[in-house]
Amino acid sequence: MMTPAALDRVRVVLCETSHPGNIGAAARAMKTMGLSRLVLVNPKQFPHAEAEAFASGALDVLSNALVCESLDAALAGTVLAVASTSRHRDLTHEVVDCREACKRMVQDASHEEVALVFGPERTGLSILDVNKCQLIAAIPANPDYASLNLAQAVQVFAYELSMFAGCTAPRAPRTSDAATHDEVEGFYQHLEDVFHASGFLNPQEPKRLMQRMRRLFARARLEKEEVNILRGFLRAVRDRMKGTNNS
Amino acid sequence: MMTPAALDRVRVVLCETSHPGNIGAAARAMKTMGLSRLVLVNPKQFPHAEAEAFASGALDVLSNALVCESLDAALAGTVLAVASTSRHRDLTHEVVDCREACKRMVQDASHEEVALVFGPERTGLSILDVNKCQLIAAIPANPDYASLNLAQAVQVFAYELSMFAGCTAPRAPRTSDAATHDEVEGFYQHLEDVFHASGFLNPQEPKRLMQRMRRLFARARLEKEEVNILRGFLRAVRDRMKGTNNS
Repeated sequence: MMTPAALDRVRVVLCETSHPGNIGAAARAMKTMGLSRLVLVNPKQFPHAEAEAFASGALDVLSNALVCESLDAALAGTVLAVASTSRHRDLTHEVVDCREACKRMVQDASHEEVALVFGPERTGLSILDVNKCQLIAAIPANPDYASLNLAQAVQVFAYELSMFAGCTAPRAPRTSDAATHDEVEGFYQHLEDVFHASGFLNPQEPKRLMQRMRRLFARARLEKEEVNILRGFLRAVRDRMKGTNNS
Repeated sequence: MMTPAALDRVRVVLCETSHPGNIGAAARAMKTMGLSRLVLVNPKQFPHAEAEAFASGALDVLSNALVCESLDAALAGTVLAVASTSRHRDLTHEVVDCREACKRMVQDASHEEVALVFGPERTGLSILDVNKCQLIAAIPANPDYASLNLAQAVQVFAYELSMFAGCTAPRAPRTSDAATHDEVEGFYQHLEDVFHASGFLNPQEPKRLMQRMRRLFARARLEKEEVNILRGFLRAVRDRMKGTNNS
């Protein structure tokens, strides 16, 4: 995947983060999902060795981080700011789940600047800060224990952003071409022959057994090489039975 | 949200985890999403104070964790095991992204036991362990830096599982129950024995052949009755070869 340009227009804003390790872990979470723009509003300790340790291979995100003195400064130029919070509040903006929020962010980020805003670890965003955003987003969580670590919340949002931005998982290449209809039919015929020869096939219900085998191998979508292996095995078994016993 | 019953049938299996802090953070990630069943295969250090510190409010998940000596033991009774990995491998099982994998896990977990398996932090799952699973799941990530921390990967999967568990449709009934891990492993062992006895198995490359068979049958997701049929056939073939020729 190329990092989609939309993700370059998404800022992740961490407000008054207490633990520098969380800043580093957030940077790492961002980079794994193709996000690079970290903005820190009044971090308690930054730069800090612990931030670098937790950032692991995402030191570039950390060293490019902007440090601001206010949320207003952090949000300058954005058209959409999403407040991440799990707390219920009176008189709030529209609340959506993080998936819906990420969808809207990616849509806007195709041409304009957007921001995703996280509050301090213990208290979350203040009402004042939430009010500077246009949307509240919550990660659906266990009501008995909704306490995601800051970097874990960043990871979930970053993941959803990258899913909408069009990043796709690598697919395993086929190791061999799909078997054709006639190749698969040849295998079924061969299998039925050896079923007979081994005395396994119940003459009362021959069709039902083969039908079950067809159902099984249809689910697997046999490849050419697999047909070759299976038929090689059937041949070996047949020779062994034949060579030693023609009774 | 009530914790949906399906999530109670999902095991999170961590293999040979090096850092106890990661075990704790994984437990926390699980609990925030309503997952509770943690299984540890040969953890380097457990129990451990650091695990408890990182678990935060998820000490119950930690103290209820099962510790096993093998992945087989951890997977006993499951009908679907999903291997979480980001590495490319030759000759692999089907690879899907974590969203698709979670969808399938939640479907199966409506009635049966499933497992989500993570490897050691540095190396990830071995080929041997991946071969004991039916599906490989990857979190779509930045190809230049796909290094999610273990607990962050658990968080993303747990989040997807809970998203699906919240709104899952009942699944079409199977014609027969899914075979469990131990039943399928028994079949592979039986197949390998008969491969040997028939002279089909190339002693130069025994593992590669069995790996191919595992890959094929993993795609098919064997049912109990199919395992019975296949093993019945192997028994018939074996008897026939044995009874007539012991040379």
